[in-house]
Amino acid sequence: MITSSSNPRMKYIVQLNKKARTRYKERVFVVEGIKMCLEAPRAQIQEMYVSEGFLADGRNRELLEGYSYETVADSVFSKVSDTKTPQGILSLVRMPEYTLEDLLGQNPHLLVLESIQDPGNLGTMMRAGEGAGVTGVIMDKGTVDIFNPKSIRSTMGSLFRVPFYITDNLPGTVGALKGRGVAIYAACLGGKQLYDEPDYSRPCGFLVGNEARGLSPGLMDLADSYIRIPMEGRVESLNAAVASAILMYEASRQRRQGVILHAR
Amino acid sequence: MITSSSNPRMKYIVQLNKKARTRYKERVFVVEGIKMCLEAPRAQIQEMYVSEGFLADGRNRELLEGYSYETVADSVFSKVSDTKTPQGILSLVRMPEYTLEDLLGQNPHLLVLESIQDPGNLGTMMRAGEGAGVTGVIMDKGTVDIFNPKSIRSTMGSLFRVPFYITDNLPGTVGALKGRGVAIYAACLGGKQLYDEPDYSRPCGFLVGNEARGLSPGLMDLADSYIRIPMEGRVESLNAAVASAILMYEASRQRRQGVILHAR
Repeated sequence: MITSSSNPRMKYIVQLNKKARTRYKERVFVVEGIKMCLEAPRAQIQEMYVSEGFLADGRNRELLEGYSYETVADSVFSKVSDTKTPQGILSLVRMPEYTLEDLLGQNPHLLVLESIQDPGNLGTMMRAGEGAGVTGVIMDKGTVDIFNPKSIRSTMGSLFRVPFYITDNLPGTVGALKGRGVAIYAACLGGKQLYDEPDYSRPCGFLVGNEARGLSPGLMDLADSYIRIPMEGRVESLNAAVASAILMYEASRQRRQGVILHAR
Repeated sequence: MITSSSNPRMKYIVQLNKKARTRYKERVFVVEGIKMCLEAPRAQIQEMYVSEGFLADGRNRELLEGYSYETVADSVFSKVSDTKTPQGILSLVRMPEYTLEDLLGQNPHLLVLESIQDPGNLGTMMRAGEGAGVTGVIMDKGTVDIFNPKSIRSTMGSLFRVPFYITDNLPGTVGALKGRGVAIYAACLGGKQLYDEPDYSRPCGFLVGNEARGLSPGLMDLADSYIRIPMEGRVESLNAAVASAILMYEASRQRRQGVILHAR
């Protein structure tokens, strides 16, 4: 049993939680909690650590049958955990590696993010994206790290299921998408079309920008169309995760209705 | 100038930020930041406090023309502020008082919340609600306090503009709405109808429940219809603010299209 927080593996976990650089150097990230640990693809789990308290519950031991793990003293677990009230289980998971091709699916439906800053927003977008049936999420390097512990938590497991791609050249990536026939819709306050006017049954990608500044002019220039979500009252903008979800679900709604119409 | 955090007004602000009980006893809450302070209805502002640092900027002094305020030492302001990097301005604002009638508008479009726990979710719902043109937001006593500093921040000012009503008898309030001809749609995972199937152009209210448990059986029984937002992949639920926004914006979309159809 690990009884000291100066144990090298414990220090490693703290570093992985704190530093994106360490995560990308090692291509490993930390997931916490029983649900997330069980949803992580088995083959990608490198190490698993559970607290004494966690193991004291027989049902927990049952859930872990077939997994190999190391036991950690409760006090040490609390120190390495990123949460205030840790469940007592965490895993080190290998980063999934997708190519842009993996995100296109049969009929691309993409969320393309520029410089999203809030980890909770980012995770919530991925969760809503899975629900809406997006084929992938693209993020630029200016977007908060999806492997940040808070982002991971907010995805509620979608991180393991939605293909995503992090690019250091977002304009280049958007250009590649356009070359593949994906229509690029930039969400912006001054958009000419209402968000429910275009036809999203064909390959589409929604460009969503930073919470405060929106999309950069360079990216705006690359868009095929500019769409806006109408706002009543004196609202200046919607929360970025809310706006993304409304767009993705409008595409989902249209695609579902298209299927219904074709079936008639 | 106030130079001590043991000043009675400073202690009072800390109490107002911390305790819902104090807020409701005094019927006063604290808003922070220049945007929120300027959006607060002038007549409702009881006291305003600004830090020395804030006043050092001439543009800030200009913005405050016509307001009366007291100056607070920077170090004291930091202690009473609820934020990590305070802007240096806060106001004590009288709680708005709405009757249920005030929430109905010409064609009721309501968000009805049971036991929402996350203050950020609650504020985000009110912000999205204003954007979608809801006529009001109803909350039960089990919902986190809308005057919690985090909720207030997440509303981005919608708190001052969207009529809301806090009830200690949500079933009774829902009954009253039904008596006024408002159709009640309960959002739930097992809903029979897809969320985009009903006609929301008539008076409607969306019942949304706790983030983890959903709606209570008692409230479910009161609903006229059960609707669900379809989810692909293995998503178990959507974030409560995201789900609410999708529903409110579907009603908004239908009402907008109704106007277009009638105009033809």
